[in-house]
Amino acid sequence: MAITTGLAPESRPCVVVIGGGFGGVAAARALARAPVEVTLVDRRNHQLFQPLLYQVATGSLDSCDIAEPLRSLFRRQHNIDVILGDVDEIDPQARRIHVRGGNGAGEEPRTLVYDYLILATGGGQSYFGHDEYEQYAPGLKSLEDALEIRRRVLLAFELADRETNPEAKRELTTFVIVGAGPTGVELAGALADLAHRTPQSEFHHLDLQRARILLVEGGPHVLPAYPPHLSASAERQLRALGVEVRTGAIVSHVDERSVTIGEERIPARTVLWAAGVAASPLARQLGIPLDRHGRVEVSADLRAPGSSSVFVIGDLASLESRGVPVPGVAPAAMQEGRHAAKNIERLVAGRGTLPFRYWNKGTISTIGRRRAVADMGWVQLSGFMAWIAYLGVHLFYLVGIRRRLVVCIDWIWSYFSRTRSARVLTDTAEGERARAHHHQLPAVTGTSSR
Amino acid sequence: MAITTGLAPESRPCVVVIGGGFGGVAAARALARAPVEVTLVDRRNHQLFQPLLYQVATGSLDSCDIAEPLRSLFRRQHNIDVILGDVDEIDPQARRIHVRGGNGAGEEPRTLVYDYLILATGGGQSYFGHDEYEQYAPGLKSLEDALEIRRRVLLAFELADRETNPEAKRELTTFVIVGAGPTGVELAGALADLAHRTPQSEFHHLDLQRARILLVEGGPHVLPAYPPHLSASAERQLRALGVEVRTGAIVSHVDERSVTIGEERIPARTVLWAAGVAASPLARQLGIPLDRHGRVEVSADLRAPGSSSVFVIGDLASLESRGVPVPGVAPAAMQEGRHAAKNIERLVAGRGTLPFRYWNKGTISTIGRRRAVADMGWVQLSGFMAWIAYLGVHLFYLVGIRRRLVVCIDWIWSYFSRTRSARVLTDTAEGERARAHHHQLPAVTGTSSR
Repeated sequence: MAITTGLAPESRPCVVVIGGGFGGVAAARALARAPVEVTLVDRRNHQLFQPLLYQVATGSLDSCDIAEPLRSLFRRQHNIDVILGDVDEIDPQARRIHVRGGNGAGEEPRTLVYDYLILATGGGQSYFGHDEYEQYAPGLKSLEDALEIRRRVLLAFELADRETNPEAKRELTTFVIVGAGPTGVELAGALADLAHRTPQSEFHHLDLQRARILLVEGGPHVLPAYPPHLSASAERQLRALGVEVRTGAIVSHVDERSVTIGEERIPARTVLWAAGVAASPLARQLGIPLDRHGRVEVSADLRAPGSSSVFVIGDLASLESRGVPVPGVAPAAMQEGRHAAKNIERLVAGRGTLPFRYWNKGTISTIGRRRAVADMGWVQLSGFMAWIAYLGVHLFYLVGIRRRLVVCIDWIWSYFSRTRSARVLTDTAEGERARAHHHQLPAVTGTSSR
Repeated sequence: MAITTGLAPESRPCVVVIGGGFGGVAAARALARAPVEVTLVDRRNHQLFQPLLYQVATGSLDSCDIAEPLRSLFRRQHNIDVILGDVDEIDPQARRIHVRGGNGAGEEPRTLVYDYLILATGGGQSYFGHDEYEQYAPGLKSLEDALEIRRRVLLAFELADRETNPEAKRELTTFVIVGAGPTGVELAGALADLAHRTPQSEFHHLDLQRARILLVEGGPHVLPAYPPHLSASAERQLRALGVEVRTGAIVSHVDERSVTIGEERIPARTVLWAAGVAASPLARQLGIPLDRHGRVEVSADLRAPGSSSVFVIGDLASLESRGVPVPGVAPAAMQEGRHAAKNIERLVAGRGTLPFRYWNKGTISTIGRRRAVADMGWVQLSGFMAWIAYLGVHLFYLVGIRRRLVVCIDWIWSYFSRTRSARVLTDTAEGERARAHHHQLPAVTGTSSR
């Protein structure tokens, strides 16, 4: 087995970053001028702008608009090596990780030695012990998830159009979203828009105005992390869009053709899961106790407890700042990434680490095409003004001029034309796999239309 | 089994169009004001702008830019029903077709009765009796093909970057394109551009300047359908781009790691097939003799021989116009589609059919990022001027304002920035399937970057 240390042939310390999401990329960038060699390992070749995934799932944006190749992000950074691969082992004693992937080249699996490790692998969807729901109710964590959801929704429209049995038609046009956090709320709003605003003339045998969008939440309010009056406003805005909101409703069963809430079985061909985050299993490799969500309870300087060299950031880290838990959102991950980088730079210089402090810039969630709620701390908005704030913030965060231009055109276009730009179904092997569960459904890839 | 007749409850004649490509869409559109009910059946939900597929394959365009949902194309046409499904049987005696697909809804397969049938299913890739080559050398006929090619090329770069054995590195950076018709030439030029213009700073262990692009043609010239001096110019332009052109070279074997030309084995991990068209097998259902390419030798009015109700158009039809075979290109398919529609309108009105005449508007093929050859009949261009003509023609043909805008931005952007906009690898079930043949390669979907 080849043992390499990324780029560094000389004596500069090696920092390995696992995970190319918001946290990992921010950390790697912040190390650009540090006297270290950085290796960034990710299973994908791109960074994903996750907060806009729901727009890909509902056909407003194309996957291209919210993903950026890692190589291109780091084109101008000279102390970094980007590796496409899966990490399947961390050995914190020997300070080594084990990377698989790309074996097509007859390449051996390889071992990377690190002086400092930044673990930023985030989390996946949690089904609360019911992993069998996953096949019926996909989550929204990756581009593939978004394209799978888009495929299911568009195909449900097609099937409903040709279905003659009214009951089956109803089942096909019932969409249930489980979980009313930001993802669930944004997905429900966008789906309601997609269904209710599709031009009637496109389907001759189907009234999409009557499509039923159900948002199911176990807790007493939608958007539980927001102040109560914003949660209430969000719920009113959702109802105005035609979304049926059910709070205090516990899902007791999901299968291919229905979801059961308590005792009530609701026939629905499309169920989407936005209810929980499961920490990446890689944390278990550290050999330390994890919290009940599988996260690492890091110390104030973001290091894993008892470790001098392993930092954990983003959704995989659990910590408090100013007495409040740091939320699992992109800005927190980025701040932690930059802070971990700063602490590594200090350690390399022989200095002590500093504790992390989260600066909450506020949160915004959209509800459909021109509503939102925003809690910026110093100001709270809802409705159209909050939506304008949302637009500004998200354009600001998207990387690259071209991206901003295209997203902008897509949004302006769909605002005025009420059409969707990304509604192409393609038949890939994804379809093959789906067929096993879901009989004969072609898959959606990419993108498109006017 | 349900028997329906598309939309028409009354006595208006039913026209069924199978295939939503250039020919089928042109025919269905031309029937908008005819006193008939039209049903368009396609396996996909979108029309594909096939002449630009090579740009999706090489990461310049996103799949969205070259596909348009059929429902959205026909939004304003009231006498048409669009059906997503696979036709697996044609019964020309009973004037019925049998449509499968979308069985997820528990829906029965259905039978459509037609008064007139337009068969426009085109063709797929032909491996000249060596279908086993397909797994090693994908063709370029659909969005899925383009995304699969993109996946293989981008992944070859990734694998080559981390490969340390020089021979294996060479094998990974050798790209062979079989067939030097327009598709092969455009693919070779775009690949050379992609490889040779990727910023050196993106790969630390790889010199893509040295990537080898081989274009293999069995005949004596590239672009054999062009006049000899344009073929020669195309060959010179390809060489200037760094493409190795081999004419008179017969491929005798293809496997996972090489292609053999005559006796010479060339190690190459990526082989692409652009060498032949196989007519859609649906033609066999008509129960009439086909030509040696599996096409229907239609009569001058575009009807299948001996049939009063079946029209065949596009790549599936074989005929001469003014003593010359009509070529298998988009403008010919569109002209035939409109002509078949006109003849059906005449038949419905109790009049006779008219013979088809092909109007050759000329052909253009690009070679890389700013060269081309164009044969417009009255004028022949090569080099930069031909490329400008190509740009104009293709923007003109793309449907929809937004599409034109985005394609334009992408092109202008990549012209100036020399970067690619569509380079995201995603790991889908396509990857799963590919692993069987190709070990561990994540799949490319959609799209993107700056």
